[in-house]
Amino acid sequence: MASPGSGFWPFGSEDGSGDSENPGTARAWCQVAQKFTGGIGNKLCALLYGDAEKPAESGGSQAPRAAARKAACACDQKPCSCPKADVNYAFLHATDLLPACDGERPTLAFLQDVMNILLQYVVKSFDRSTKVIDFHYPNELLQEYNWELADQPQNLEEILMHCQTTLKYAIKTGHPRYFNQLSTGLDMVGLAADWLTSTANTNMFTYEIAPVFVLLEYVTLKKMREIIGWPGGSGDGIFSPGGAISNMYAMMIARFKMFPEVKEKGMAAVPRLIAFTSEHSHFSLKKGAAALGIGTDSVILIKCDERGKMIPSDLERRVLEAKQKGFVPFLVSATAGTTVYGAFDPLLAVADICKKYKIWMHVDAAWGGGLLMSRKHKWKLSGVERANSVTWNPHKMMGVPLQCSALLVREEGLMQNCNQMHASYLFQQDKHYDLSYDTGDKALQCGRHVDVFKLWLMWRAKGTTGFEAHVDKCLELAEYLYNIIKNREGYEMVFDGKPQHTNVCFWYIPPSLRTLEDNEERMSRLSKVAPVIKARMMEYGTTMVSYQPLGDKVNFFRMVISNPAATHQDIDFLIEEIERLGQDL
Amino acid sequence: MASPGSGFWPFGSEDGSGDSENPGTARAWCQVAQKFTGGIGNKLCALLYGDAEKPAESGGSQAPRAAARKAACACDQKPCSCPKADVNYAFLHATDLLPACDGERPTLAFLQDVMNILLQYVVKSFDRSTKVIDFHYPNELLQEYNWELADQPQNLEEILMHCQTTLKYAIKTGHPRYFNQLSTGLDMVGLAADWLTSTANTNMFTYEIAPVFVLLEYVTLKKMREIIGWPGGSGDGIFSPGGAISNMYAMMIARFKMFPEVKEKGMAAVPRLIAFTSEHSHFSLKKGAAALGIGTDSVILIKCDERGKMIPSDLERRVLEAKQKGFVPFLVSATAGTTVYGAFDPLLAVADICKKYKIWMHVDAAWGGGLLMSRKHKWKLSGVERANSVTWNPHKMMGVPLQCSALLVREEGLMQNCNQMHASYLFQQDKHYDLSYDTGDKALQCGRHVDVFKLWLMWRAKGTTGFEAHVDKCLELAEYLYNIIKNREGYEMVFDGKPQHTNVCFWYIPPSLRTLEDNEERMSRLSKVAPVIKARMMEYGTTMVSYQPLGDKVNFFRMVISNPAATHQDIDFLIEEIERLGQDL
Repeated sequence: MASPGSGFWPFGSEDGSGDSENPGTARAWCQVAQKFTGGIGNKLCALLYGDAEKPAESGGSQAPRAAARKAACACDQKPCSCPKADVNYAFLHATDLLPACDGERPTLAFLQDVMNILLQYVVKSFDRSTKVIDFHYPNELLQEYNWELADQPQNLEEILMHCQTTLKYAIKTGHPRYFNQLSTGLDMVGLAADWLTSTANTNMFTYEIAPVFVLLEYVTLKKMREIIGWPGGSGDGIFSPGGAISNMYAMMIARFKMFPEVKEKGMAAVPRLIAFTSEHSHFSLKKGAAALGIGTDSVILIKCDERGKMIPSDLERRVLEAKQKGFVPFLVSATAGTTVYGAFDPLLAVADICKKYKIWMHVDAAWGGGLLMSRKHKWKLSGVERANSVTWNPHKMMGVPLQCSALLVREEGLMQNCNQMHASYLFQQDKHYDLSYDTGDKALQCGRHVDVFKLWLMWRAKGTTGFEAHVDKCLELAEYLYNIIKNREGYEMVFDGKPQHTNVCFWYIPPSLRTLEDNEERMSRLSKVAPVIKARMMEYGTTMVSYQPLGDKVNFFRMVISNPAATHQDIDFLIEEIERLGQDL
Repeated sequence: MASPGSGFWPFGSEDGSGDSENPGTARAWCQVAQKFTGGIGNKLCALLYGDAEKPAESGGSQAPRAAARKAACACDQKPCSCPKADVNYAFLHATDLLPACDGERPTLAFLQDVMNILLQYVVKSFDRSTKVIDFHYPNELLQEYNWELADQPQNLEEILMHCQTTLKYAIKTGHPRYFNQLSTGLDMVGLAADWLTSTANTNMFTYEIAPVFVLLEYVTLKKMREIIGWPGGSGDGIFSPGGAISNMYAMMIARFKMFPEVKEKGMAAVPRLIAFTSEHSHFSLKKGAAALGIGTDSVILIKCDERGKMIPSDLERRVLEAKQKGFVPFLVSATAGTTVYGAFDPLLAVADICKKYKIWMHVDAAWGGGLLMSRKHKWKLSGVERANSVTWNPHKMMGVPLQCSALLVREEGLMQNCNQMHASYLFQQDKHYDLSYDTGDKALQCGRHVDVFKLWLMWRAKGTTGFEAHVDKCLELAEYLYNIIKNREGYEMVFDGKPQHTNVCFWYIPPSLRTLEDNEERMSRLSKVAPVIKARMMEYGTTMVSYQPLGDKVNFFRMVISNPAATHQDIDFLIEEIERLGQDL
């Protein structure tokens, strides 16, 4: 690895240069640039690394810093050997960067070197010979480095080192063998878009300060509503900080629709409200109910069949039960793609019940929404068009960088009425442009991060058909895994049948357990298998997959595939790795 | 501006190269690289732009794409004129980038060209000769470009163009003359850190998938609590998606502390709760109360003095009044740095009242928290150490990129108890590392964006003393502005006295209004002045500053300074610009 002082070119030092001094990037680029005959060399060199017209200053206490700022390339135009030509970050601090006077050159050099570190990481992320994670225990990491914050500044050499160190211990979420979460993969266009978003550094509340992003949010949400199937894509929506908050929005809006007085009067003014969701649904429904003053006891968990799908007859029974008690059913949250099993609740049957009892129908398609992009798989969400609101996280199955979660609402204006507070310092009514684009007041947040651009740019780059191909490929890989292990010795499926999403849930049974009777002792021993294999995976850093218990089922592996980098060979590798790491248990 | 096909070097085409074909970056770099004698040239050229060993493929339908992927530089090693050496993005799509086989070269070229666009934007952001905004009305922008999403992919040339277009119409929030929001400026280290965060693309819920970031959050929150003044920095906290959500957290936790049963039973099980905050406080307190089922009617607005500070005697009066009605005062939210006036509520007096009546004391220091970094100004928050919780947004006064908001809580464990739902698929209890670092269950969110790294890296780069210098400088600039306009003809201050924060609130009185009597007609005409000047500022793109009415005060300008790029000359410019744009009104 190149030392910071010699630049951060991601590909190590240049072999074959015949230079025994191991010149770093800055110097190397400078040397390259200087040898160009057309005049560009000097310009590039000057722009990136220094002022070719003047020699570096020396002498005096400010000299090293001044020299570093003036930049490294103080050589004559040619021939140039630039032995002192590096940007010496050890003499530079944040205060030497823009907006500092003369800050342009060190800024460009610094940002370019940060970029080189990032490019190195990106390339490594996709390299199967690198580790998914270089795992260290928390106390090890805390002892190995000094992470503390101090009064005095560090120089830019140290800052660049921190960037390298941070990435060294980061998990490579784009690695082809990283299967640990619903959000995996690293999309290059999405990444570029997120860098741009950071650079634009603005907020979503008004058109005034985010003109393009506000329009792109409008266009993108409308497109998503069209895909859901709402006529003309009409309705409302917002990008929120994650699926849990999107689900909470749905609960808030459903409550407001039924009892608008709750906004001013609170829950004291309304009868006891009951929400329904399946026992396999996401825990955010309960979190939301706790936050909103509804209470977790008022979230009724509906039974699921053996595949994890909500049983409509149980839903209807529980709705009636609640009504008999004098409670008011106000929301059913059906799940399209449960977290563990990847199950799709029967949306049409749920919609019928919601219609019959006049209950707001929400669909939590945070995980399954991506399947709407696939002509082959979207039938699994049939009935979603009858929902009143839908959570759909493009940062999951569609591979958009974190985070990107949308809440879509069928009725227009409801979000605004539910949340608006008319802050006059932000949403002035006498602006000179069309105020309907100042959408911030419908949010629960005030400032809101720009999450739309990465989705929009990826959509442009892939087209709907590109997302479809991505979804179809991941589903195909899941089926490939299922077909291999369903009859393989040493595996038991948690539920029967082909996966509906990319979730494949299974136990690995080590040889020592295969002949045991199916009793408590076996269950107890089996429950320890997945945690040990997972711990070993992390220590070797070869792959990562999640596990958990569920109901009366002891710890099992939940494989999910949303990473477009994964191939059949990676699935094969995962199976071999589980067997390698688990055979002695 | 360079066309996409010829690369995106940020500094235009190379003059003096003597090449009439106006070669783009890729070719230029390649040419430069090829002329280097040490072997590095070929390597750089190959890595970034092509395979120097093989000629570009030709013929067959896949040929242009293959050639583009194999990359442009098909020349012999030297001499190299590379007339076809560009990466022709018109033949490349997202599917040609990593993780595609052979995707490394086009990926590096593409990301580098994106970076060149971003660097160009960064440099322009600080250039006073560029516009703060190239303003277009929503319908103009919608008509001028096709932003719609389609089935088919676009090529990478188009994607790069979209990046340029998006930035062309973006507001330059780092521009030295952008004063529109509390969050302004573009910190180079913060930006680098945010790029890194995007590249790491992970979530904050567990140590397992964000080892370093989880530790950095721990270290940073502890440091912030130390600065607040809680003994040993003990307590709890979280980075949340913005100050509104941080305030909502505080309200939730305060409620839970007093009535833990609210989590399961909801608001129906508790008496009527009352929150108190000043009439100048942020609207998020009401948003939070509406969301949490408390209701906006239960947020009592306490009177402020003429400087916008909460009047403690009115607070006590209203607390007693609520108690007499049988209601339960559960939260006082004092503001340290109000949005419009920049006022600091008298925290010590508020703390005494909270102690006397056993009410949770929250301090909304979203805007004013940064002053804690300054030995000169932190006295304005005296008493903050007696708060039970504090909202502090480093993305405001400390110039950290958006978004970065912290909620700090004095009592440890409360957040966890308030919010945890024990999702077994995420927070497995049989992991092989110290589970106390799996902090996700204390959040209201499930997935949570990594907001800490940019603050941590900036803190390392600036030191506490660097933040102090930043704060002191902005406060000094505000005082400079105040001193100029307080006695200047054509200005009226909204309140008397030196600003406590960087908020300077004033009316500009055009010559035609200066001789009018102080009656309704004058007020009516004055109310139209700021909106027109603001609209003109945006159309000229020269500067931006916010305005609003407040109470019985008609539209006035609220100047705020958090941008480290601003200088005395920029303040002078603002005054001149207001006069230039407003003198005819």
